[in-house]
Amino acid sequence: MSEVVGGRRARGGGAARRAERSAVRIECARFIERNIPNLEILDDEALAIIEHNAETVLEEIGVNFVENPEALKRWQAAGADVDFEAERVRIPRGLARQLCKTAPASYVQHARNPERSVTVGGRGLVLAPVYGPPFVRDADGGRRYATLDDFHKFVKLGYMSKWLHHSGGTVCEPTDVPVNKRHLDMLMAHMTLSDKPYMGSVTEPSRAADSVAMSEILFGGLEDRTVMTSLININSPLTFDGIMMGALEVYARANQAAIISPFIVGGAMAPVTVAGTLTQVLAEVLAGVAYSQLVRPGAPVIFGAFVTSIDMNSGAPTFGTPEASLITYGAGQLARRLGLPYRSAGAFTGSKLPDAQAAYESANSLNMGLLAGVNFMLHACGWLEGGLVSSFEKFVMDADQLGVLHHLAAGIDMSENGQAMDAIREVGPGGHYLGCAHTQANFKSAFWRSEVLDYKPFETWAEEGARDTMALARARVDKLLADYQKPALDPAVEEALTDFVARKKASMPDAFM
Amino acid sequence: MSEVVGGRRARGGGAARRAERSAVRIECARFIERNIPNLEILDDEALAIIEHNAETVLEEIGVNFVENPEALKRWQAAGADVDFEAERVRIPRGLARQLCKTAPASYVQHARNPERSVTVGGRGLVLAPVYGPPFVRDADGGRRYATLDDFHKFVKLGYMSKWLHHSGGTVCEPTDVPVNKRHLDMLMAHMTLSDKPYMGSVTEPSRAADSVAMSEILFGGLEDRTVMTSLININSPLTFDGIMMGALEVYARANQAAIISPFIVGGAMAPVTVAGTLTQVLAEVLAGVAYSQLVRPGAPVIFGAFVTSIDMNSGAPTFGTPEASLITYGAGQLARRLGLPYRSAGAFTGSKLPDAQAAYESANSLNMGLLAGVNFMLHACGWLEGGLVSSFEKFVMDADQLGVLHHLAAGIDMSENGQAMDAIREVGPGGHYLGCAHTQANFKSAFWRSEVLDYKPFETWAEEGARDTMALARARVDKLLADYQKPALDPAVEEALTDFVARKKASMPDAFM
Repeated sequence: MSEVVGGRRARGGGAARRAERSAVRIECARFIERNIPNLEILDDEALAIIEHNAETVLEEIGVNFVENPEALKRWQAAGADVDFEAERVRIPRGLARQLCKTAPASYVQHARNPERSVTVGGRGLVLAPVYGPPFVRDADGGRRYATLDDFHKFVKLGYMSKWLHHSGGTVCEPTDVPVNKRHLDMLMAHMTLSDKPYMGSVTEPSRAADSVAMSEILFGGLEDRTVMTSLININSPLTFDGIMMGALEVYARANQAAIISPFIVGGAMAPVTVAGTLTQVLAEVLAGVAYSQLVRPGAPVIFGAFVTSIDMNSGAPTFGTPEASLITYGAGQLARRLGLPYRSAGAFTGSKLPDAQAAYESANSLNMGLLAGVNFMLHACGWLEGGLVSSFEKFVMDADQLGVLHHLAAGIDMSENGQAMDAIREVGPGGHYLGCAHTQANFKSAFWRSEVLDYKPFETWAEEGARDTMALARARVDKLLADYQKPALDPAVEEALTDFVARKKASMPDAFM
Repeated sequence: MSEVVGGRRARGGGAARRAERSAVRIECARFIERNIPNLEILDDEALAIIEHNAETVLEEIGVNFVENPEALKRWQAAGADVDFEAERVRIPRGLARQLCKTAPASYVQHARNPERSVTVGGRGLVLAPVYGPPFVRDADGGRRYATLDDFHKFVKLGYMSKWLHHSGGTVCEPTDVPVNKRHLDMLMAHMTLSDKPYMGSVTEPSRAADSVAMSEILFGGLEDRTVMTSLININSPLTFDGIMMGALEVYARANQAAIISPFIVGGAMAPVTVAGTLTQVLAEVLAGVAYSQLVRPGAPVIFGAFVTSIDMNSGAPTFGTPEASLITYGAGQLARRLGLPYRSAGAFTGSKLPDAQAAYESANSLNMGLLAGVNFMLHACGWLEGGLVSSFEKFVMDADQLGVLHHLAAGIDMSENGQAMDAIREVGPGGHYLGCAHTQANFKSAFWRSEVLDYKPFETWAEEGARDTMALARARVDKLLADYQKPALDPAVEEALTDFVARKKASMPDAFM
């Protein structure tokens, strides 16, 4: 393929070297490697009950693979009991778990900038931004349909966010671009405006194939390297639709990673109880991951769990709730027992504004995600209004809070310097530590410091306009976008990508459905 | 004492019965008993190092007991090496820990309404409101010096808050009352406007004695029952002042509980490292608790740790930070190894407003407090601006979030009903759970529901004025204060308390220092 050649040319090209020399280096933290334990809220007996029940669900109730005759045949060949008319697959006890064994416990997702590559699994935590909202909101323009221009801004903010490891996927829906061509513009933005890892399209199998093709251009051939982690939602309860499975098949065949994720509003798509929801989540993930391994044994997949609860008064989904936390903790244990990387949590909120509600709910979920052992956290910043809105201010507010997770995950330094006995001796009773030698040697790195929040004395703060967090965040958005500079990319690669997108767009009429 | 008689009369009096019949019953959750584990971030080796280092601090550096010759004599008699001129006490390795053994692992703090009594220690968590701010803030009046009228409102809000178990102490400083008489009005408010447990005064030993005397009136004699938990701060680093120790002595002698609490802004009153701060915290608590047991073996005390970090750019204390969380987790482990109840965490924030910053920082600390095994959480609601301000709106916002902690602490119901296999069978692939029998039977209690936050559809919310959390909280404050009704109290007891306060006030001139 010409695109691959274009990519390979980049490695030694003078243009690429010139582009690299002129590029601004943006600070980006490495993905989190936890030095603290997970919170294990279920004991072994409870876990065994849930695992037994999940196998019962698979064996007796089964799952539906709809509009996907090939999938039904695959399942039959693997030993499942398949009802072709009902599209129902009943999976004998133990079979799905057995099939899951070929899925890797962790994998590397390569970024075009090797410093930005991430390992998904183990003790790690990779943070990725909000995914999917059709609306955006900012302090100036309020709430409105998202456009490609908004999309570009979010990719730039993600690139500029120190604590964000991943550029994500549909950071907002560019509703001004035809539905059947959006994925091309979105991928182009992630590939050219950022050098962090990104997600592929899942809205049609053909768009997944385009994602693979564009990645081949960007990377100069993939040769089975994993360069995308994409989001495959399960139609909970217990249903796998043909489009999502088609995309999964494309990705698995190309050794690209997929999050196999039940999408659950508890009380609607799953039972109102935590243990019942965990049972269903496990059954769904077992079936989905097993299916990925039927397509290609060894394909990288993630145990996903998008779980929230419902307000039984209004039917609205609710976020940052204790029931969602309990499920997230429990599902983490189930994922670890299955030996799979785990995706859950995010800066979730039902609030319409980036206000205190948004922050309480988001902080509840972010903290829980760290302690639940999540390995891949989508929606880690920018989510607002139950996922209907990508908020510019909340993006930078949440992204700043992700620094808290990094420092918490680092655990406690028990070195001689950490023990600080010299400092305690030097200062003694009634003294203070501000000027002591140990403080002078350590203060720069001792404490996490927000780059958004207000630490000023009351009087200074009042003189400067008594700004609330939204106003501070708005200033931060403006600053990051003003400071943004595009990361270096070989012009030949960018040209090849541009050509690919232009040819694809020209090959089909616009569709807005 | 006439007051005691007055109290005893209450038990059988017709007036008391009439008062009880006419009272509105306010819903109040029982204190939390955790059904989830604590997060243990330090391993045994790290804990042993910190414990060893703390003993080294006590033995080699020592602690100061200032302006308190009696305390120095007590320490000498107990076997410590005392420098009377320097007021320095060096405690031989192991002695303080040995003395701590007589302190109870848990205790009951009785409330005048027995349903509101709390157990402090074990797997429990008792939640108490903000303590100490000289200012108040509300949406209408902004920031201003606190008055007794504000104090009364906060006590009423605490009484009306379902998830708050404790009425607290100095919910704000009533700055319009002379300093030497404030404690009388504050105690009167807690005793008459609420029936939840409360804290005593610590600002002078004589005020602690007044607190005990008024409690004797309220309870009709104490007879060693513990009815107060009061806050004894250590002057970190390593200094115990005569006033606080004097108050501690009064309370210990009366078998009233005290929180022995280092007050640490890391980098100023303790080393900038987590392990160093934990070492100092443990040394200080060991010395303080040991001292309480020298005054009265068996006196109930709490291992306290008020810990925050400092912004090294400005010197301002910062809240909800990862370093403070690490210290709080570690100190919880140290407290459990010492066999003492543990006080830490709170709805801390440095923000000037009840905005997103306030909520992020508070949620970080509230979640951490639950998982760190805190048994008594002061400042669980209402804290703003680094503790300078008690905020009416934040009080109800935080108090609402305390419901999240209750539901999270309940853990996962693994009963047959919790497992919900019937529901999964009934609904099957592609169905929904909203109408199924299991949902109908469980939905009322299945999910925690906020009484402050917004769960409405966007359009409804916009029509109703697009209110942010502060506006919603303001409405909640108004509603709770409008709904408030004083809990029943025998008029004879109230009269006796009023008499006591009047006599005490008349006995001394006003002092404002």
